[in-house]
Amino acid sequence: MMRRINLSLTSALAAAAFSLSTAPSRGQTAMLVEKKVFELPSYTTEGGGTIRNLRIGWESYGTPNADKSNVVLVTHYFSGTSHAAGKYSASDQVAGYWDPIIGPGKAIDTDKYFVVSSDTLVNINVGTPNVVTTGPASIDPDTGKPYGMAFPVVTFGDMVKVQKALLDSLGIAKLKAVVGASGGALQAYQWAQDFPERVERIVPVIGAAGSNPFLIAWLDVWAQPIRLDPHWNGGDYYGREPPKAGVAGALTVVGLHANGAEWAAQGFGSAPADPGKPPAKALDNRFKIQAVLDAAGETRAAGVDANTFLYLIKANQLASTDPARIKAPTLLVSSPSDLVFPPDWIERTAGAIAANGTPIERATVSGPNGHLNGVLHIAQAGPAIAAFLAKPFK
Amino acid sequence: MMRRINLSLTSALAAAAFSLSTAPSRGQTAMLVEKKVFELPSYTTEGGGTIRNLRIGWESYGTPNADKSNVVLVTHYFSGTSHAAGKYSASDQVAGYWDPIIGPGKAIDTDKYFVVSSDTLVNINVGTPNVVTTGPASIDPDTGKPYGMAFPVVTFGDMVKVQKALLDSLGIAKLKAVVGASGGALQAYQWAQDFPERVERIVPVIGAAGSNPFLIAWLDVWAQPIRLDPHWNGGDYYGREPPKAGVAGALTVVGLHANGAEWAAQGFGSAPADPGKPPAKALDNRFKIQAVLDAAGETRAAGVDANTFLYLIKANQLASTDPARIKAPTLLVSSPSDLVFPPDWIERTAGAIAANGTPIERATVSGPNGHLNGVLHIAQAGPAIAAFLAKPFK
Repeated sequence: MMRRINLSLTSALAAAAFSLSTAPSRGQTAMLVEKKVFELPSYTTEGGGTIRNLRIGWESYGTPNADKSNVVLVTHYFSGTSHAAGKYSASDQVAGYWDPIIGPGKAIDTDKYFVVSSDTLVNINVGTPNVVTTGPASIDPDTGKPYGMAFPVVTFGDMVKVQKALLDSLGIAKLKAVVGASGGALQAYQWAQDFPERVERIVPVIGAAGSNPFLIAWLDVWAQPIRLDPHWNGGDYYGREPPKAGVAGALTVVGLHANGAEWAAQGFGSAPADPGKPPAKALDNRFKIQAVLDAAGETRAAGVDANTFLYLIKANQLASTDPARIKAPTLLVSSPSDLVFPPDWIERTAGAIAANGTPIERATVSGPNGHLNGVLHIAQAGPAIAAFLAKPFK
Repeated sequence: MMRRINLSLTSALAAAAFSLSTAPSRGQTAMLVEKKVFELPSYTTEGGGTIRNLRIGWESYGTPNADKSNVVLVTHYFSGTSHAAGKYSASDQVAGYWDPIIGPGKAIDTDKYFVVSSDTLVNINVGTPNVVTTGPASIDPDTGKPYGMAFPVVTFGDMVKVQKALLDSLGIAKLKAVVGASGGALQAYQWAQDFPERVERIVPVIGAAGSNPFLIAWLDVWAQPIRLDPHWNGGDYYGREPPKAGVAGALTVVGLHANGAEWAAQGFGSAPADPGKPPAKALDNRFKIQAVLDAAGETRAAGVDANTFLYLIKANQLASTDPARIKAPTLLVSSPSDLVFPPDWIERTAGAIAANGTPIERATVSGPNGHLNGVLHIAQAGPAIAAFLAKPFK
């Protein structure tokens, strides 16, 4: 089986621009991890749809203690996967996306905690090795063909219920914490709202407690390139040429919205893509930043399914947790230059949680990458996360 | 001739959401204006291209004084036109976009100033009544067919040179001020840099002194829907079905990027487009904000040419004025919630201009509309603009 790592678009971009790497420093031995699969014979969605043969991938780092009271659930972001830490093989070039804070002696210390990370339902990277998910690209047992647009709408509530079933199967009754970035933060809030008795504390990173009308509209902009690609064909493209240009375009929009002006300025300036083709000379002569973004989108598109992208967009548009129902102590980590979940919105979520009398702490991550500071520069919040996990909340 | 008003996408959206109008209050008589046309037999672009039979539309408000020393040039924004004030006919529903500050007794007082407003080269609204422009949709005299992608790249430098030729034709040697929003601000800076002896002062509104790498990439996102539309066909669609879906999609992205979260929350909430079709029930069931944005884009697309949109994108990507060369006293008007030209970038422009010893004053416009506060709520800056215009700079 291929053991290629699931390098995210955004990490790839940052790596290209800055030679950043989320891998452990040289000389350290990488934590080796393997993908496991959880299956449910049948699952009924919040909307009343039925998914048979549901499968999601998951990984774990560390060891459960005797009463399984040391479990931390890590939930992934929009374009992410369950590969949060470690490597599948010592020869992998890059470790999981949050490797700087998950591992022995790190902020989420695998010498203390048993860390579980799962692929969500409708994970967009369905065509990528090591991602296991169920969505519109999955085979409908009733027809033997991909569900396509017949797949039921799924919500963050559904994602969390499936994770709960996974934890039930492992005999885990209560989580020490749910920790996740962006879409992972939405899952953390959802856990705290839907299963308050099973979550001791949450660490939402770069995320408010759901979508808002402006983000609903932006998510539609993310999806638009797919709908415009004639190969999308109303969602009916399995077995034919898929809408790769649309998917690439969609990933480009996501990657840009999630990044920041400082990143663009430092990494690209106004350099041309090709020094022999100045952008002022012809309409099609591009700037370097356009060429790099387009190339990243195209490369990444090979593993991403268009319909699944649309289903995940819908789930994000529907995301809506009531901060007044968050009773779990919360460490909210945010990025001041975040364009997806900007500071004023984060403040409102924090204020609404505090208004319950729920303990809430704050930390920030800064850097040139806007929203993505919460992925690429999470190490800044490592001490705050470690201290928060160590607190004796019930 | 049709006298339909050139309602901009963004004004239309705001009007739909808030029953806003930029028309004078009832009871006031509208200033009546007419479109005029300026022609150049031949123009050579900064890049060395030749445009024959160049034509741009223009309007004026007020009366020139004897020595024509009372002239204010108003420059329009990306999706705007020269219709800055007044009405073409008393029955027009909406007045020009900056009517609240241009007219008798208003901030740009037409009892004192002769205000000239011109359509730029490559104005996207080329298919709209009352817009006169030259671009890829214009007929190439050499072939008798539209230029299409054979049209030369044009820059903000070119736009300003053509405006200068218009003013020369009117015997106007020096401008009291250049005043413009967004793309109009880029023109104001360009005027101050390229023709310092002909500009007494500038009032750039919601704009920094050029593009930056992040905006370059965003502008490509604005353009992307057109390039994805198969009807665009590499720019070769004249005489066939044009890429209307791509143009509508592009206008939707522009309209969203230029607006703000508060607008979306106040105007739409998370209401469904159709109460009988809840967004949670099916993938294609939309939220109201999506339906309104899409409808506005589709309506507007009828008057917008796809290739011209791409040429204007290119001009914006190339926009680059050196603030160190701005010697004209400047009143910089900005919107704190602007996502296109955000506050930190505006500050850097202001700082760089001040560092010359150039007098610079500041004013802000606030409201729910982000970047568009500079169009929809410009009246807030009226007193600052009036006072600045009245100052005895040289």
